[in-house]
Amino acid sequence: MTDAHVDGVRLTLDEVRTLARRVLLGAGLSRAHAEAVAETMVAGERDGCASHGIYRLLVAANSIAKGVVAVDAEPVVSEPARALVRVDGGGGFAQLAFERGRQRLAEKARAYGIAALALNNVVHFAALWPEVEALAEEGLVALVVTPSHAWVAPAGGTQPVFGTNPIAFGWPRAGGPPFVFDFATSAVARGEIELHRRAGKPVPDDWGYDADGQPTTDAAAVLSGAMRTFGGHKGSALAAMVELLAGPLIGDMTSRGSLEADAGRGGSPIGGELIIAIDPVGFLGDAVAEHLARAEAMFGAIEAQGARLPSQRRYAARARSVTEGVVIPAALYRDIMALVPGE
Amino acid sequence: MTDAHVDGVRLTLDEVRTLARRVLLGAGLSRAHAEAVAETMVAGERDGCASHGIYRLLVAANSIAKGVVAVDAEPVVSEPARALVRVDGGGGFAQLAFERGRQRLAEKARAYGIAALALNNVVHFAALWPEVEALAEEGLVALVVTPSHAWVAPAGGTQPVFGTNPIAFGWPRAGGPPFVFDFATSAVARGEIELHRRAGKPVPDDWGYDADGQPTTDAAAVLSGAMRTFGGHKGSALAAMVELLAGPLIGDMTSRGSLEADAGRGGSPIGGELIIAIDPVGFLGDAVAEHLARAEAMFGAIEAQGARLPSQRRYAARARSVTEGVVIPAALYRDIMALVPGE
Repeated sequence: MTDAHVDGVRLTLDEVRTLARRVLLGAGLSRAHAEAVAETMVAGERDGCASHGIYRLLVAANSIAKGVVAVDAEPVVSEPARALVRVDGGGGFAQLAFERGRQRLAEKARAYGIAALALNNVVHFAALWPEVEALAEEGLVALVVTPSHAWVAPAGGTQPVFGTNPIAFGWPRAGGPPFVFDFATSAVARGEIELHRRAGKPVPDDWGYDADGQPTTDAAAVLSGAMRTFGGHKGSALAAMVELLAGPLIGDMTSRGSLEADAGRGGSPIGGELIIAIDPVGFLGDAVAEHLARAEAMFGAIEAQGARLPSQRRYAARARSVTEGVVIPAALYRDIMALVPGE
Repeated sequence: MTDAHVDGVRLTLDEVRTLARRVLLGAGLSRAHAEAVAETMVAGERDGCASHGIYRLLVAANSIAKGVVAVDAEPVVSEPARALVRVDGGGGFAQLAFERGRQRLAEKARAYGIAALALNNVVHFAALWPEVEALAEEGLVALVVTPSHAWVAPAGGTQPVFGTNPIAFGWPRAGGPPFVFDFATSAVARGEIELHRRAGKPVPDDWGYDADGQPTTDAAAVLSGAMRTFGGHKGSALAAMVELLAGPLIGDMTSRGSLEADAGRGGSPIGGELIIAIDPVGFLGDAVAEHLARAEAMFGAIEAQGARLPSQRRYAARARSVTEGVVIPAALYRDIMALVPGE
């Protein structure tokens, strides 16, 4: 570990992993949970997603300290129907629940052509792309949705109903990392508004409403009022779909239920996640390679005009991080080190 | 049939159905195709979607006249995997292919918890909501996607790659019509730009690009250039997902392939459609009613603040049409009557 420059600390990915595990174990997580959660943070840091890197140690530690997380929950796997898998996370973080269910999901997708995995009763603080990427790397097409806390107003309204409700999708590519996207159905990430608030900067007046339902440029007012969805009524419709698929459809909470269950503690959202996996071999049989090549032609037509594929920036950062390590801002590093037991 | 006022002709829904069948049979469609296609147009007219009502008789007749449609294709149903159904439409319109596959799809969704139906080699001119609504009325959750012709540029580019690539979703509701949305991932419907062109009106400069890749307010230039996706890079990512799911994944064409296959004839898009159906009983078992009631609470929270559910306007029009019939603009009625054999 060496200082990269005055403002940052350079760490290898192994050092990030070790640090994350120490903090999470120190915060009280069981070893299995600490290792699963640490991998998500290593992946975020590695891919240049600073807001989903080890910064999230602070977020996770907060949820643990507030009693929102079952620190040693043992996920319980069941098979409610032939092509369905359920993992009851028992109130623990989502990562271990996904790890415990993903192999059965992949097996069922291969056996039936399509399958779905529901994670129930899990705490969410992370992006969804690690999950779709893991499945796409096994050759499966994956679609993942999860609600969050009710922070977002439906189009035509000004009161929060939806969460930031991300949608993530993964598509396997031969000889390279998968095509992956993962975005919130809110107009912007909540963290973006939080950054404006901390910096004392106004937000654009189409990001959200204050608690009285009036458009506002005051970041704090949006945070205590309601965010907007992206894309007007279309984004709002998608946000509703996410609520339905990963809430009532799998017997779990909506974003309003999650925020009520938080009861003002300020912890991460609690609830469900739905993961649909499709095996391309199901429809394509022996012709898989031929048809996946046609997908490559489409990617080529996008890149040939200078447009970027959604996952491209992450993969470029990954290639750098693996050889050069990552740089953690000094202030963040200090805040994290303060959480290390015995430091 | 009576004149409603000087500009329109009032028809009952049965009269619309009879007229549509006569035109479609006269154009050469087999009886099975004519009846399936007519039902879609009756549904559009009934629900106040004029652009998907019997106006589409002109669109369908054009595709038939141009030789784009196999007028008497007999759909072939197969089961490539245990939870997958495929219907090869043989180059005919999509409606009959869907009718022939939907029952097996519903059976498989109930047997396995989740299932998918691919329609291959079908001609598309219609909205997707009739399909998701039919499945949701059987108690299933449905997600449907289809590519079209390559008319839409990816975010960050200006050359067409994607189709207007709609996404439709349906959710069953006890005691009422389902929650349904169906929207193009393009910024606007192509027909909207066409209406501006006919009226000689400029379009907003964020709807599309001319053939040189420059933003333009000239509707004709956008039609021969490229439309934009809705919602920036997020809408663009969804448009790519639609291409992948209902193109390469099911062994069918992308929107670029469809436009090439059209070879300048100006017919409707040809290709595939993917329909995913999930049975709520799979995850919920005996607790279905309890959890669907929680979805109703979310719908209530949306409507209580004066926001509309996506399907609400259609259902209100439907209630009126069933008792009052519909009014067809006089000019459209004349154009349609010119297609009736022997008139």
